[in-house]
Amino acid sequence: MSKVFVIGAGMSTFGPFPDSIVHELCHQATWEAITSSGVDARKLQVCYAGHAYQGPCFGQKTLVKSGLTGMPVFNVENACASGASAVMGVYIMIKTGLYDLGIALGGEKLTGADGGFLPIVMDDLDSTNGRVMPAAFAMIAKRHMEKYGTTTEQLAKVAVKNKKYACLNTRIAEKYHKPVTLEEVLQAPMIADPLTRLSCCPVSDGAAAVILASEKVARQYTSKPVEIVASVLNSGLRTKYGLIEYRSEMSARAAKEAYEMSGIGPEDINVCELHDPFTIAEIVHYEDLGFCEPGEGGLYIDEGKSEINGKGVAVSPSGGLLGRGHPLGATGVAQIAEIFWQLRGEAGAHQVVNAKVGLAHVVGGGVTSIESGACGVHILKV
Amino acid sequence: MSKVFVIGAGMSTFGPFPDSIVHELCHQATWEAITSSGVDARKLQVCYAGHAYQGPCFGQKTLVKSGLTGMPVFNVENACASGASAVMGVYIMIKTGLYDLGIALGGEKLTGADGGFLPIVMDDLDSTNGRVMPAAFAMIAKRHMEKYGTTTEQLAKVAVKNKKYACLNTRIAEKYHKPVTLEEVLQAPMIADPLTRLSCCPVSDGAAAVILASEKVARQYTSKPVEIVASVLNSGLRTKYGLIEYRSEMSARAAKEAYEMSGIGPEDINVCELHDPFTIAEIVHYEDLGFCEPGEGGLYIDEGKSEINGKGVAVSPSGGLLGRGHPLGATGVAQIAEIFWQLRGEAGAHQVVNAKVGLAHVVGGGVTSIESGACGVHILKV
Repeated sequence: MSKVFVIGAGMSTFGPFPDSIVHELCHQATWEAITSSGVDARKLQVCYAGHAYQGPCFGQKTLVKSGLTGMPVFNVENACASGASAVMGVYIMIKTGLYDLGIALGGEKLTGADGGFLPIVMDDLDSTNGRVMPAAFAMIAKRHMEKYGTTTEQLAKVAVKNKKYACLNTRIAEKYHKPVTLEEVLQAPMIADPLTRLSCCPVSDGAAAVILASEKVARQYTSKPVEIVASVLNSGLRTKYGLIEYRSEMSARAAKEAYEMSGIGPEDINVCELHDPFTIAEIVHYEDLGFCEPGEGGLYIDEGKSEINGKGVAVSPSGGLLGRGHPLGATGVAQIAEIFWQLRGEAGAHQVVNAKVGLAHVVGGGVTSIESGACGVHILKV
Repeated sequence: MSKVFVIGAGMSTFGPFPDSIVHELCHQATWEAITSSGVDARKLQVCYAGHAYQGPCFGQKTLVKSGLTGMPVFNVENACASGASAVMGVYIMIKTGLYDLGIALGGEKLTGADGGFLPIVMDDLDSTNGRVMPAAFAMIAKRHMEKYGTTTEQLAKVAVKNKKYACLNTRIAEKYHKPVTLEEVLQAPMIADPLTRLSCCPVSDGAAAVILASEKVARQYTSKPVEIVASVLNSGLRTKYGLIEYRSEMSARAAKEAYEMSGIGPEDINVCELHDPFTIAEIVHYEDLGFCEPGEGGLYIDEGKSEINGKGVAVSPSGGLLGRGHPLGATGVAQIAEIFWQLRGEAGAHQVVNAKVGLAHVVGGGVTSIESGACGVHILKV
């Protein structure tokens, strides 16, 4: 088995671009990843392309815009975890020695004629009866508040933090460079009690790409490769017992596997991009990922531990999903790109000082108790 | 690197089932594959699920119906080659030693409210202006006829052959157990000259699944494992120079790679399931796969070489896409299942006597000259 390294990353600007073409956004990300890594594009051997709603042969349509055809392309979907699945797909191809160079890309265009709403799957009785994502997360929030005394102020602080960092991130559209106050989050229009509009991620389009390389070739391209020391994808239920338990069983299990695989523990993580489509999600995932004990997520944000210069893990320094939006297939790849830049000290104004170990976490599907979803966790280090 | 074996296969009946639920069809296929292989379902370690239009987290929704959750699931799409991509995904996981047991499944429901038509992608200028699949293949046919003197009778003979075999296949709905004569094919309503309605595959729903195992564990489950000796996925253009050249560049390249990988040549193949959504496709692919020289595809069918008891390669003994329909994600997996049964002598009334080596070939996307598609070729042997 080979070690696997990230040697280049690229991103389109994330934001609402209703007139854009998704393959063009992907091309921007792909080309930045290729040129910044110094790889001869013709040497790429395999591609995994993550997306959820962008139609057939998504990866091929993107790569052909970058002048790339011929390699095996796996178009992979796992709802919000599609991008992480793409990264893991390429990781495995290289880890196992089959290839030396591959590209993982992810993209999604959500704005457009339908106003950015996700399509409702008609055979999903929960969604068609109103238990869409904001409602599901609102119930998780209510449960967490009841069980642990978590407050709406604590929830709101997540939005304040992440939107503050988004303003520092030049890869996010100017439109989303808007800091918000605690009062503004609390007083925004209610979407699903206790989640207000500013507690939910905005609608964005975007794409991201990373170039992965084997141990054999990585140092031909860079003196600062970033190693992927754990890559885990699993499936299961988002919530352990449907409505009754709030924890993300998939997330806790994936994190445990990733820690075991890497020999790295939550106490070693300096920077984390996690799945924060709603404020409550970040608090719950502090706990799932082991940054704090169950029930202490509210305290973690209260004490500023997840701030860039906090005493815990710097969480969502990019702005996270709350800051940059959540173009589904792009998110998981963008997280890896962000961690890559952070660990190389190239993150810009939102750099976490001296970050050496980073974790990316994303969860897709599996809202209801009868359906299954996917969770991806990656740990990277320099 | 481990050898990789197919140790079990399953299929739902293929046919028009507008009232069916695709995950239920997949469950039937999955459960047959599991029970016939004797594998403890809980020992499956990874799943690749192929489909094109069935919505998010397709594989998870299917597996949960079979009581299976927790394993990594990659939902993979490559248009008509989605199923082959799923098989290759699991193949790689096992070949490289990462896992010992995995399941590749594919499914698609095409009938329903929209009458079974494939969605037209609005950014695809060719399709929106009328160059849909039948039109594209009609142009390939016209070109082949002009260049090589291929006749409409030769084209029609492909439909006669494949629909004859479909009548012997108990895994196809009774509705499609209808032999046709040369005259009926030629005189059927014209869809896109020279392709009549009986020259096109019918609309079907269906699902298929195969269990793949490493060398280490395969013989624990069966004394008749079928080895996958080549698995190739590539991308590119379906036609070499858009409209000008009729050959499938992707197919010829994938076949060449598969022959090199396995040390097996076209002269060694006993049985083949190839991509025959239209009669002309089978003729062109005889040539692409090296069963005959370029331009001799018409002669190949004329001389009965592709019949079950012919002097060449028995092609589409299952009935092929023309016989059973083409539920996109299911097709590539169903081909592997069919070759598995053929090589074990378990194909029933359409058994190819003494078949030892089989090839499965499928092509997806890439109709137009500017877009890219995918081609999968697998070679199996006992």
